Amino acid sequence: MALRAWKLNIDRTGKFFSSLTEEQLLHEIAPGKNRLVYLWGHLAAVGDAMIPLLGFGARLHPELDAMFISNPDRAVVETLSGAELKNLWNEIHDALWLAFSKLSAPDWLDKHTAVSDEDFAREPHRNRYTILLNRTSHLAYHFGQTILTRSR
Amino acid sequence: MALRAWKLNIDRTGKFFSSLTEEQLLHEIAPGKNRLVYLWGHLAAVGDAMIPLLGFGARLHPELDAMFISNPDRAVVETLSGAELKNLWNEIHDALWLAFSKLSAPDWLDKHTAVSDEDFAREPHRNRYTILLNRTSHLAYHFGQTILTRSR
Repeated sequence: MALRAWKLNIDRTGKFFSSLTEEQLLHEIAPGKNRLVYLWGHLAAVGDAMIPLLGFGARLHPELDAMFISNPDRAVVETLSGAELKNLWNEIHDALWLAFSKLSAPDWLDKHTAVSDEDFAREPHRNRYTILLNRTSHLAYHFGQTILTRSR
Repeated sequence: MALRAWKLNIDRTGKFFSSLTEEQLLHEIAPGKNRLVYLWGHLAAVGDAMIPLLGFGARLHPELDAMFISNPDRAVVETLSGAELKNLWNEIHDALWLAFSKLSAPDWLDKHTAVSDEDFAREPHRNRYTILLNRTSHLAYHFGQTILTRSR
């Protein structure tokens, strides 16, 4: 059920961004706020960072962080077009979905890689499943913002 | 873990709205979009509707629907102040939290009240747990919008 919620959020977010033109991607979600292209890259980067966090291996696109996580919008010159972001988005989320499909229920309750054994013993909710739930909320949070640009 | 995610979203949303003045609640989240007061009422109404949907009993505030669900913002004259919404918000979510605390794990996998026995046999994911996950995403979706008004 949590995987279904994740997938639903990934699909509606990818579908929304993929439908935009390169020009539309440069629109701000609200006056003075992030541009759509930044949010798309941000969500792709956060998805990519889930790969090592959940113990699935090395990141596919660590170069996204400087553009879309560690710096605010417009601080760094973007070099990615919407077409490129769409490819990255699909690549990252296909890889995550494949890795998810190999996890058993107990695997989901294992600790994620950013928590120590000692902390996990005290706080057993710091597991893969919590990451999945939190990242689903994070997707919905930003999807709610992007949708404000529709019909403008 | 899903309850923790729900609670986190309820708390940050309630805290945000409660911190606003009556005047600030009348601000729009973006030009021409919903006002904050409408979103707060909308989330309170959706929370209230979870009470019968999850089989916990009758709604506490069915009168919220005409103002905040079945009609768009500004279609109906609101009669609720921020102070009143805050009381409703706390009442509704305290009632939900108390009811949640009485459910066992299998109870969460029981069907919700808006699905028939036949449909539930075919689609067992239409249970209380899915409602909890979806409503958590719904909260995050709108919280992402409300936060755009911060620092304006």
